[in-house]
Amino acid sequence: MLEMLLRRSRFAYFVGKRFFSNDVIDHAVVELNKEMELIFGETPPSSVMDSTSQTQESQVTTSRLDESQQSLSHVDVCGQVSMVDISSKADSKRVAVAGCRVLLGKKAFDLVAANQIAKGDVLAVAKIAGISGAKQTSNLIPLCHNIGLTYVQLDLTLNGKDCSVDIEGEVAITGKTGVEMEAMTAVTVAGLTIYDMCKAVSKDISITNIHLKHKSGGKSGHWSKNS
Amino acid sequence: MLEMLLRRSRFAYFVGKRFFSNDVIDHAVVELNKEMELIFGETPPSSVMDSTSQTQESQVTTSRLDESQQSLSHVDVCGQVSMVDISSKADSKRVAVAGCRVLLGKKAFDLVAANQIAKGDVLAVAKIAGISGAKQTSNLIPLCHNIGLTYVQLDLTLNGKDCSVDIEGEVAITGKTGVEMEAMTAVTVAGLTIYDMCKAVSKDISITNIHLKHKSGGKSGHWSKNS
Amino acid sequence: MLEMLLRRSRFAYFVGKRFFSNDVIDHAVVELNKEMELIFGETPPSSVMDSTSQTQESQVTTSRLDESQQSLSHVDVCGQVSMVDISSKADSKRVAVAGCRVLLGKKAFDLVAANQIAKGDVLAVAKIAGISGAKQTSNLIPLCHNIGLTYVQLDLTLNGKDCSVDIEGEVAITGKTGVEMEAMTAVTVAGLTIYDMCKAVSKDISITNIHLKHKSGGKSGHWSKNS
Amino acid sequence: MLEMLLRRSRFAYFVGKRFFSNDVIDHAVVELNKEMELIFGETPPSSVMDSTSQTQESQVTTSRLDESQQSLSHVDVCGQVSMVDISSKADSKRVAVAGCRVLLGKKAFDLVAANQIAKGDVLAVAKIAGISGAKQTSNLIPLCHNIGLTYVQLDLTLNGKDCSVDIEGEVAITGKTGVEMEAMTAVTVAGLTIYDMCKAVSKDISITNIHLKHKSGGKSGHWSKNS
Amino acid sequence: MLEMLLRRSRFAYFVGKRFFSNDVIDHAVVELNKEMELIFGETPPSSVMDSTSQTQESQVTTSRLDESQQSLSHVDVCGQVSMVDISSKADSKRVAVAGCRVLLGKKAFDLVAANQIAKGDVLAVAKIAGISGAKQTSNLIPLCHNIGLTYVQLDLTLNGKDCSVDIEGEVAITGKTGVEMEAMTAVTVAGLTIYDMCKAVSKDISITNIHLKHKSGGKSGHWSKNS
Amino acid sequence: MLEMLLRRSRFAYFVGKRFFSNDVIDHAVVELNKEMELIFGETPPSSVMDSTSQTQESQVTTSRLDESQQSLSHVDVCGQVSMVDISSKADSKRVAVAGCRVLLGKKAFDLVAANQIAKGDVLAVAKIAGISGAKQTSNLIPLCHNIGLTYVQLDLTLNGKDCSVDIEGEVAITGKTGVEMEAMTAVTVAGLTIYDMCKAVSKDISITNIHLKHKSGGKSGHWSKNS
Repeated sequence: MLEMLLRRSRFAYFVGKRFFSNDVIDHAVVELNKEMELIFGETPPSSVMDSTSQTQESQVTTSRLDESQQSLSHVDVCGQVSMVDISSKADSKRVAVAGCRVLLGKKAFDLVAANQIAKGDVLAVAKIAGISGAKQTSNLIPLCHNIGLTYVQLDLTLNGKDCSVDIEGEVAITGKTGVEMEAMTAVTVAGLTIYDMCKAVSKDISITNIHLKHKSGGKSGHWSKNS
Repeated sequence: MLEMLLRRSRFAYFVGKRFFSNDVIDHAVVELNKEMELIFGETPPSSVMDSTSQTQESQVTTSRLDESQQSLSHVDVCGQVSMVDISSKADSKRVAVAGCRVLLGKKAFDLVAANQIAKGDVLAVAKIAGISGAKQTSNLIPLCHNIGLTYVQLDLTLNGKDCSVDIEGEVAITGKTGVEMEAMTAVTVAGLTIYDMCKAVSKDISITNIHLKHKSGGKSGHWSKNS
Repeated sequence: MLEMLLRRSRFAYFVGKRFFSNDVIDHAVVELNKEMELIFGETPPSSVMDSTSQTQESQVTTSRLDESQQSLSHVDVCGQVSMVDISSKADSKRVAVAGCRVLLGKKAFDLVAANQIAKGDVLAVAKIAGISGAKQTSNLIPLCHNIGLTYVQLDLTLNGKDCSVDIEGEVAITGKTGVEMEAMTAVTVAGLTIYDMCKAVSKDISITNIHLKHKSGGKSGHWSKNS
Repeated sequence: MLEMLLRRSRFAYFVGKRFFSNDVIDHAVVELNKEMELIFGETPPSSVMDSTSQTQESQVTTSRLDESQQSLSHVDVCGQVSMVDISSKADSKRVAVAGCRVLLGKKAFDLVAANQIAKGDVLAVAKIAGISGAKQTSNLIPLCHNIGLTYVQLDLTLNGKDCSVDIEGEVAITGKTGVEMEAMTAVTVAGLTIYDMCKAVSKDISITNIHLKHKSGGKSGHWSKNS
Repeated sequence: MLEMLLRRSRFAYFVGKRFFSNDVIDHAVVELNKEMELIFGETPPSSVMDSTSQTQESQVTTSRLDESQQSLSHVDVCGQVSMVDISSKADSKRVAVAGCRVLLGKKAFDLVAANQIAKGDVLAVAKIAGISGAKQTSNLIPLCHNIGLTYVQLDLTLNGKDCSVDIEGEVAITGKTGVEMEAMTAVTVAGLTIYDMCKAVSKDISITNIHLKHKSGGKSGHWSKNS
Repeated sequence: MLEMLLRRSRFAYFVGKRFFSNDVIDHAVVELNKEMELIFGETPPSSVMDSTSQTQESQVTTSRLDESQQSLSHVDVCGQVSMVDISSKADSKRVAVAGCRVLLGKKAFDLVAANQIAKGDVLAVAKIAGISGAKQTSNLIPLCHNIGLTYVQLDLTLNGKDCSVDIEGEVAITGKTGVEMEAMTAVTVAGLTIYDMCKAVSKDISITNIHLKHKSGGKSGHWSKNS
């Protein structure tokens, strides 16, 4: 229903442009701004604010431009989507480490540990898939920059306690942007590959806690998850 | 500004869900439906209508489900995006022919015609690129099905009158969906390749009138552009 | 250390082939078979057994062949890796539904819900990325068949209770093999995309519980996770 | 027919090598050179000339080499095709802006403007497809260098006057070669995506005037289309 | 030199169209046809003949069409390139087996056999790469159909006699075209991967005798290399 | 059989961890180390040694860590697979030249030389495929870095003596790692393309002697094959 509302409200705007004054719309915006402040206890991070206001700026300009040429600026709600500009960032070594855990259950775990899975050596295939996967990141994540990685490494450890495989992946680059997504993608693809090779044995396998462990390099510098 | 309105109006809904009754929203929808009828002289094509009402159906169901589990259904405006379900369509031979024209200007045209472009045989490279491009269609167009093509062919013709290259591409398949996009992509990639090979000679080259010439097969059957 | 043991034990075999009789090796195999029975309370699923014994068969034949030509059959431990043969399976409609949850934390959640994330409409981009990702599955998972999907659909739901996004993905095909991996990949790529778009706001985001919800079609028929 | 002539003339050469002296061939070349000068009022751009004469150089050398080893140098007409050598170019920031227009017709335009297209938010999907498409450029255009882009951004504007969508795409890089093709590919893929999402409503949609708007950076420096 | 001749001869035609009658050209073709018969002791395979004459047919028609619209049909020498039309072929099971040999030299061979190569288990990685490579065939070979494979399997055997690895790859499909290229690509990519993993040890490694061993299925039926 | 041994021996280890002391295992390792020295007349290249011992180091650490957390470190035999870390290498110009030969047989050779192959201009298509293939290298070879190439060039020469095509490919980069694999892949893909286009004429075509001709740049500097 919200969807209908949204799609129609945009349509209404489209209609409105022809029949109503901008005051109505401006008023609505003001009201909504008030409501927003009610919700957000804290103000959003400046980074977001900046880019948001920026967007507003550019929108205003654009739309003026549009008026001048009698066209209609329909800005879809993905309006400001773009691959962030890193053209003038300095090259520096950046490293990211991500991890996840694949819960196999006892039967699949014992077969993997014994390397008795019919489809082949699960950990070997998963590791190679993870490395290849890291190189595919920018084909999978729309706003990721396509970058040349300088290092990809995965560790897979069998965890007897809860019949799981712990996957840790490290990716490095000497470049203008971080490699968090490449590390996250590497461990995820490795995890999916384990699932694929074991699914004939059990469908109750799940991949859990895909997360960033730490990163270094770049303007934001070092960050580590506090576990 | 519209973007701000939209993004806030969605936020308003997010707020609203907590403070307001659904009547307000329902009322708005009714009003907007009226406005819609004003604009559309004719009713939109049934195909669209069907799927739209469908979407409404499912939305309602979903949102009920959501209430029951106390969660909030935020449906982004791309909410109904999906790759159309063709699972139960019958296999049949489908053909599509697309075309475009590359306006080279005299200097580039003469060099292409004489095969004197430094980067190599422009038409040969463009033709091969177009064939390869057709196979990449589903990687480029998000909602395109990935399908096995049974035929791809391109014709490039030098057009002395306006110093252009006419590109025509034909694609066929025996399957459950049409190949219009594959034909359109084939001629477009061929056109871009011509641009790439000639851009050192002239930057005032443009690709124009990428269009579908005709299609056959499938439920909608034969269609031809009336030129 | 195990790795060293393994790599050397394989090397030992390489050495052994020249100095020792096969009896030693055969004996070891017998012993190990006994040990295996101790561990597996139940016998492994027939599917696994079949293919395993199959592998043994073929290995024997191969190695005989090898002797005859005085060569050495070094079978790496990924020896039996292959893309399963589905050539003679019947085409049938197969459906798979997978799910996962992205834990955003309050700040990121509020911004996503209000569509205030600087990089753009998170849910819209994630949904499109998931659909595209499903089509990339066979490029990511080494032993996955490359197949033409007939349906891909994702639902993303904001979950106010724990500040998360629930992702559900459905994939269908009319073909010779299931689409579990395509559904798992679709929701995973959508989840990674959400992470990518929100990571500027918070790095403590994690993707959890990637799992198969249910599947239908094919020889194994219908299966549903009992939650 | 020309094709037959060409293919046979090359064959004739192949035959000729066995029966005729090189004088015949040399003479033909001289004659043709004369004819060339008749046509080209102006001399081709030096860049082309250089590389052409270069090619002649290398051809001569090669063929000598070939004779010496009694082999036959059959140089196909794509003979000099290569990815231009940019190894020793300096890294610099380069920007390219391209544009195109999608002519929707009234029915499709109204539905897009109202975001009533069954397949989803047309502009949102098109924008994301365009960004992803830019990263695929070197897979589509055979002689394009595969490079890491530092910025990709698209603007889509509804144009009420002629029921069209204006697409503008900007791509940047800090590297050794320009990004004209990436910008051209971005807007083209966005245009094709709009076509794909609207083709159920109307097949009379066309993409027109794909062109470079301006570029900056690199040896050739700044260039802008004079509209 | 031939290249210059060809490129100019095509240019000459371009010139000729303006000054000369078609008789000259037709005469040349007749002469060349005679010469062709001299060379080919046997007549080329009908398959080739058919398609060639076909091409002539279509060319004639096209060029007529062209005249009628006062344009010039410059058909590049890749003119008839196309992905062969298999739309109306029947689905059948097709299998292809290819092979190649990687000559490692003693040092690399011993390290591979002992699995002591620093980069990892050479045979394991090569086998997985070969399987993945088979799925990439249509992205690599321009005129290959993109098809869904139903089986891919590789065998790698260490060959003590000449310090080599023998690679055999089998690919199957139930479809409209053969999988020779997929089998050839699988073994080749596996071979290249072995080279990559061993090149730090020795650069004098070569891949040799990539060949088709046998194929079955399709109109041409069973074929086996007579070794 | 060896495979069974290996897979079971690893399983035995898994079992052993529960029943046996580490002494048994350590002893086995010592014994195997002795055997290794017997075989290797010379000590493996330091590069290999370093990384091997390194691996041992890390293994020890890891496994200790593992013990401490009561988990089991099952390190698959691909355990040390990783994409080599080149993060801190200096950028420098690197060039690699590779070659191979395609043995066509007389019939196919004559048709290629006369450009009478039905599928099109074999050498033209092969050359373009080789250039595109070089850009796909890191998608094909699991441990290859994905890098931006600065130059790709192929030469194809008809060799009348043995009815073959000689392919030579040169690739360059200004970066942190060599391009041997890109050059090897370029000539290989060109060779496979020739096979594809000629296979209708003869199946007895083979690609032979894929090898590196020389490389320059990087720490290891210049290397040339001594023919």
